[in-house]
Amino acid sequence: MAAAQVWSVDPRTGKQREQVAVEATAADVDRAVRAAHEARPALADRAVRAAFLRSAADRLEAARDRLVEAADAETALGTARLTGELARSCFQLRAFAGIVDEGAFLDVIIDHPDDTATPPIPDLRRYKVPLGVVAVYSASNFPFAFSVPGGDTASALAAGCPVVVKAHPDHPATSELAAAALREAAAEHGIPEAVVGLVHGFDAGVELVRHPLVAAAGFTGSVRGGRALFDAAAARPVPIPFHGELGSLNPVVITEAAAAERAEQIGTGLAGSMTLGVGQFCVKPGLVLAPSGAAGDQLVKSLADAVAAVPEGVLLDHRMRDNFVAGVAERAALPDVDAPVTAGAAGDHAVGAGFLTVPASRLAAEGEHDLLLEECFGPVTVVARYEDDAEVTAVLSRLPGNLTATVHLSTEESRGAGDAADLVAALTPLAGRVLVNGWPTGVAVAPAQHHGGPYPATTSTSTSVGGTAVERWLRPVTYQSTPEALLPAELRDANPLGLPRRVDGRRES
Amino acid sequence: MAAAQVWSVDPRTGKQREQVAVEATAADVDRAVRAAHEARPALADRAVRAAFLRSAADRLEAARDRLVEAADAETALGTARLTGELARSCFQLRAFAGIVDEGAFLDVIIDHPDDTATPPIPDLRRYKVPLGVVAVYSASNFPFAFSVPGGDTASALAAGCPVVVKAHPDHPATSELAAAALREAAAEHGIPEAVVGLVHGFDAGVELVRHPLVAAAGFTGSVRGGRALFDAAAARPVPIPFHGELGSLNPVVITEAAAAERAEQIGTGLAGSMTLGVGQFCVKPGLVLAPSGAAGDQLVKSLADAVAAVPEGVLLDHRMRDNFVAGVAERAALPDVDAPVTAGAAGDHAVGAGFLTVPASRLAAEGEHDLLLEECFGPVTVVARYEDDAEVTAVLSRLPGNLTATVHLSTEESRGAGDAADLVAALTPLAGRVLVNGWPTGVAVAPAQHHGGPYPATTSTSTSVGGTAVERWLRPVTYQSTPEALLPAELRDANPLGLPRRVDGRRES
Repeated sequence: MAAAQVWSVDPRTGKQREQVAVEATAADVDRAVRAAHEARPALADRAVRAAFLRSAADRLEAARDRLVEAADAETALGTARLTGELARSCFQLRAFAGIVDEGAFLDVIIDHPDDTATPPIPDLRRYKVPLGVVAVYSASNFPFAFSVPGGDTASALAAGCPVVVKAHPDHPATSELAAAALREAAAEHGIPEAVVGLVHGFDAGVELVRHPLVAAAGFTGSVRGGRALFDAAAARPVPIPFHGELGSLNPVVITEAAAAERAEQIGTGLAGSMTLGVGQFCVKPGLVLAPSGAAGDQLVKSLADAVAAVPEGVLLDHRMRDNFVAGVAERAALPDVDAPVTAGAAGDHAVGAGFLTVPASRLAAEGEHDLLLEECFGPVTVVARYEDDAEVTAVLSRLPGNLTATVHLSTEESRGAGDAADLVAALTPLAGRVLVNGWPTGVAVAPAQHHGGPYPATTSTSTSVGGTAVERWLRPVTYQSTPEALLPAELRDANPLGLPRRVDGRRES
Repeated sequence: MAAAQVWSVDPRTGKQREQVAVEATAADVDRAVRAAHEARPALADRAVRAAFLRSAADRLEAARDRLVEAADAETALGTARLTGELARSCFQLRAFAGIVDEGAFLDVIIDHPDDTATPPIPDLRRYKVPLGVVAVYSASNFPFAFSVPGGDTASALAAGCPVVVKAHPDHPATSELAAAALREAAAEHGIPEAVVGLVHGFDAGVELVRHPLVAAAGFTGSVRGGRALFDAAAARPVPIPFHGELGSLNPVVITEAAAAERAEQIGTGLAGSMTLGVGQFCVKPGLVLAPSGAAGDQLVKSLADAVAAVPEGVLLDHRMRDNFVAGVAERAALPDVDAPVTAGAAGDHAVGAGFLTVPASRLAAEGEHDLLLEECFGPVTVVARYEDDAEVTAVLSRLPGNLTATVHLSTEESRGAGDAADLVAALTPLAGRVLVNGWPTGVAVAPAQHHGGPYPATTSTSTSVGGTAVERWLRPVTYQSTPEALLPAELRDANPLGLPRRVDGRRES
């Protein structure tokens, strides 16, 4: 049987562009993982790792035109957005290089002997070591930032872990180009190119998470696909950490006072956020609690005007388009659900943005309207109109875990008036990032970022964006009573590598 | 049907001592978890939490005589050991109180806005919040330190998480007494007693890990029991972190030069470590690679002399005794396995310590001798005699993950001579703690401690002993563009709580 062909497809026409590769067989996956495993020592030196990450950014920038052209042809995301996404990915690679240089992520803790403790404390020195080969599952909606050269790859390499990336079928050509850039950067520093493996195909993805030499996995995608891989990771003879970002509704609460103060601004802002990238962001606001009454009506009207003016767009592939059209139609058919602007198919390939409204009371208890509490990927959101605070509380209590939760407050509430602080506190259990008077789309690459949240937002307590993402690919090890000459340099008293560390309870930087 | 009775049993006689409780029904578990969940706000204040932990230590010390008496009657571990274990547990509770006071575990990171980043960075403030109710599964072999008042409980409470503890059937009376002491301490600070729930019974343990309001679990026990609960935790509609310590062989490598230098000292030290607590430590050295030849022979002779002199002991329960006797017999019956001192039954209730020897070549490839690479709980170890370094490497490559790995080196090797550093490096992938010239029994409570290791040593990358154990029960949350008045006090610019934190990339302590 011939190997299955992997084609690059233009979502603007539905036509095949070129054959990029063939799907990886089990033997191919095994080869890629073994080669990556063998390449681990080449990543041991932190200075080399940091230089590699910076070269990777340089190479991606050098290949920008080709990368953006291929990505636009495969994803229809547009060259402006893709140019920005590539810049973000390069910024991210350099940020992780800085993290590698600093070495705080090694979390060095040294305790000298203490005979007064119960039991006595011997000489103990702890730091973190890389887990091994990381399987990275690319996202459909970010061909750069959450794919081959994205945050999982960057943070894994920063930790000292080779990666084998499972390319997303929506952008195989872009994946090959990006992997080539990363491999060239590796070769530039004498690192085997196998530190960045790339495989195509659904079955290859399953093989990958089951491979005995794969030590951890990072995933960005759907609840269905992510849960299947999470389950496979947990069912292994030796289970491995599976850091998956699966899905999120990203609730937004708009207070009565906020709507009264700036209905138009909020309506317009929401339209921009929910339709950004044709609604294909994991942090798209998918459920908005807006007050009933005149101010809320004005907000909905502003939203309608703004959404109606949004140009048609092309989704990442035709399967997603079909799912979007069907998902919107199924939701719109529910009792008491209205569609002030109808989302759905536009021509043979595009879709139009829209939104639905529903009385919040319909979501306050289990029932057929629970469908509205499931993510619908694409340019649509649900505005639930509430009568009072009790309805807001009731709806929030029914939400699954989220990446983000947002509240829009009036000027006075933002200064602490009323129960605004309680509302912020009530949103905290729901999400990994809480926003006030902003929109969740746009995930900054920064040390304090947290892009994760209670299940199904993520399958672990970790983040896939920001400096602490590197923690996912490490495990601590402690050396007890180990003579100086045999210790890793990171743990020697003299601190030859100049690492920030904690010694006998005191922090040294 | 009447509820199943929970009896305290004396392992020295096999006789029932007293009925302590009845097994918890599903409804009982639900009540305990809900009450613990409702009690969360009482743990929100760090000062109150720290005071509670210190009072818990005080109360346990005040109840010391009763606790030790009950524990000795149920476990036969002896009053000296149990007094020490209780002191360790109190030290641990106070150590976590200190960690709560300091607040470094909140991992506060603040980034002020930066428009030069790609994409621009808004105001982001991250810290860690408690996960919720933690299920704690007590260990058989540490009725205090890894049970009701042990490290999982102490670290969970330190994190702000209530616990529901599943008592171990080997010490139900001790569990009740310890829980009472912890609850009295809670009440002293106005905290509902439900922050420390206690349930008995196998089925209750399964119910617990499946309960929707249980947010995480800590476990110390066998591979079989731990894996079943890990699987249940992963299979939930909303999976939860399961931090299990399941089993460990704790390999020891003795170099030719070390044996030549101090065969007797090593043999005697090994005898002490492997028979400590009647061989019922999770860090018992269970596989020792010793050189063939005269020095190794001398080491084995010293080990034999010392082990033969170890008094008989009583295991924690009769099922363990049966498993130990059968496990030793099955191993001793393998080809080429000798028993210089035969371990096994002694009278109706006790066991005698012993050890087995085998040529290391028998362990170098898959076969029936793989049984020797499985933990055998009780006072027995396996000494594998190697001919050359290649055999050492071959055996090490076949080991599952371990809590500890130890090497004994000569004085010259300890100074870095020969390939000692390579040997230490080769042990690092095998374990969470690497020891040189020591014995793995004895796990100090210290910031740099790591008590965990690759599966099956633990099911996660975390530790159950030491300051970083608190990290298991927290998740990060980031506030974006949130006005000062609405931020948790921990994240305000003025740092009113005086927390160590990282602001715009610089660490403040």
